[in-house]
Amino acid sequence: MQASIELNDDPAVRYLLRLADTCLILGQRLSEWCGHGPVLEEDIALTNMALDLIGQSRALLTHAGRLEGRGHDEDQLAFLRDERDYLNLTIAELPRGDFAFTVLRNLMVATLLKLTWRRLQASSDAGLAAIAGKAIKEARYHQEHASDWVLRLAGGTDESLRRTRAALAELWRFVPEMFESDVIDESAAATKLGPKASDLEAEWRAEMNAVFAEAGLAAPASSAFRSTGKLGRHTEHMGFLLAEMQHLQRAYPGGVW
Amino acid sequence: MQASIELNDDPAVRYLLRLADTCLILGQRLSEWCGHGPVLEEDIALTNMALDLIGQSRALLTHAGRLEGRGHDEDQLAFLRDERDYLNLTIAELPRGDFAFTVLRNLMVATLLKLTWRRLQASSDAGLAAIAGKAIKEARYHQEHASDWVLRLAGGTDESLRRTRAALAELWRFVPEMFESDVIDESAAATKLGPKASDLEAEWRAEMNAVFAEAGLAAPASSAFRSTGKLGRHTEHMGFLLAEMQHLQRAYPGGVW
Repeated sequence: MQASIELNDDPAVRYLLRLADTCLILGQRLSEWCGHGPVLEEDIALTNMALDLIGQSRALLTHAGRLEGRGHDEDQLAFLRDERDYLNLTIAELPRGDFAFTVLRNLMVATLLKLTWRRLQASSDAGLAAIAGKAIKEARYHQEHASDWVLRLAGGTDESLRRTRAALAELWRFVPEMFESDVIDESAAATKLGPKASDLEAEWRAEMNAVFAEAGLAAPASSAFRSTGKLGRHTEHMGFLLAEMQHLQRAYPGGVW
Repeated sequence: MQASIELNDDPAVRYLLRLADTCLILGQRLSEWCGHGPVLEEDIALTNMALDLIGQSRALLTHAGRLEGRGHDEDQLAFLRDERDYLNLTIAELPRGDFAFTVLRNLMVATLLKLTWRRLQASSDAGLAAIAGKAIKEARYHQEHASDWVLRLAGGTDESLRRTRAALAELWRFVPEMFESDVIDESAAATKLGPKASDLEAEWRAEMNAVFAEAGLAAPASSAFRSTGKLGRHTEHMGFLLAEMQHLQRAYPGGVW
């Protein structure tokens, strides 16, 4: 059994890991659709998006490992951290849910990622800017795909509208975490590494509201609930996800067979 | 619960389904690696191959549906047949196994598919020839990827060599089925739709032996065992795979949410 690696407390590394882990964990969740989509075309589309997200995560983890300077590669960073050292947004780790839940979550996260990548293209870190330049094209497509599906489901049958509304009620509780800035954000803004989480809120809400208006949906009222995934405090779902994801790497350190 | 569709007994449709189902079912098995690969790079590579195979299957199923002339689309053909009406080679349905098993199976099937697609490029059916023209490029890459890994594992540690040999002993029992021709093959050959299974055996063995020679492996002796997946008689593993795969489509006919 492979021991865990320790997480660096460099704020720039943590800033990168928040983004990398959100991509990695959502990629894992989307990959659960692989072979289980309702129709072959969507099965393939969702799996392709999972691969895009895991690819983005790889690039960020490699970059974070370099910045960290302890010789950790992408696989060690992806597989060998303890749960509290994964810094993804909580919304990414929620169980797969039904198709309405999946596409609405994709819309929420893809919109956020698109806005993030757009700012990161001007990062003071040239390596990160290059990653963002490639990733933004993928995020734009993910947002468009998800938006098309939300419109289709909200304007479909009673059942698909009911499911879309239920997904919205469930997912909206995880919005505040997306835009809470802390010292890691302040540090990133000060060094021009990237935007603070709170910088993106107005644009994100405007883009979401545009889809909701067309779909005849209404954003739920905000609640006092605060999720804390990006601080390393996760829901009960995260442990199961990591157990699945880490199994091989932990059992056979560095081994491929 | 959605009822099953009946399988046409047109030999050309069955010829296409044998190929389509081998791609579909191996694609399902490979997709089980998505999110569970030993390293991120291989996780992504195997999932990409799963998507290629499922894409090939979609094209073939759409074409088979047109040929069949009963208005069945790719999804009905993919999801709504009974077990005995799936005509994949048995080797494709065997459980995922370890990484050595996975890459050796990929080598065996990708080599066969490459040889099949090569002949199908000259099919009397122009639609099938077009599908083959695209698919052969993918199969060539799959074969190359698998061959590189078999060489690496056979020449790796004692453990990886042991696992590769064990995989070979297990998988070799499913070779004879790959090359047994029957009336469906005779009909395909007569109409120049495509090659008989037995037409590909010599080339396949030559290509496999070339890899084995380089890897220091030896093909096991042949046994009297005959698997029968392409006749619709499957192993006990097939029912579980289909239950997983068909669940959504059966529960919500035509529904996407």
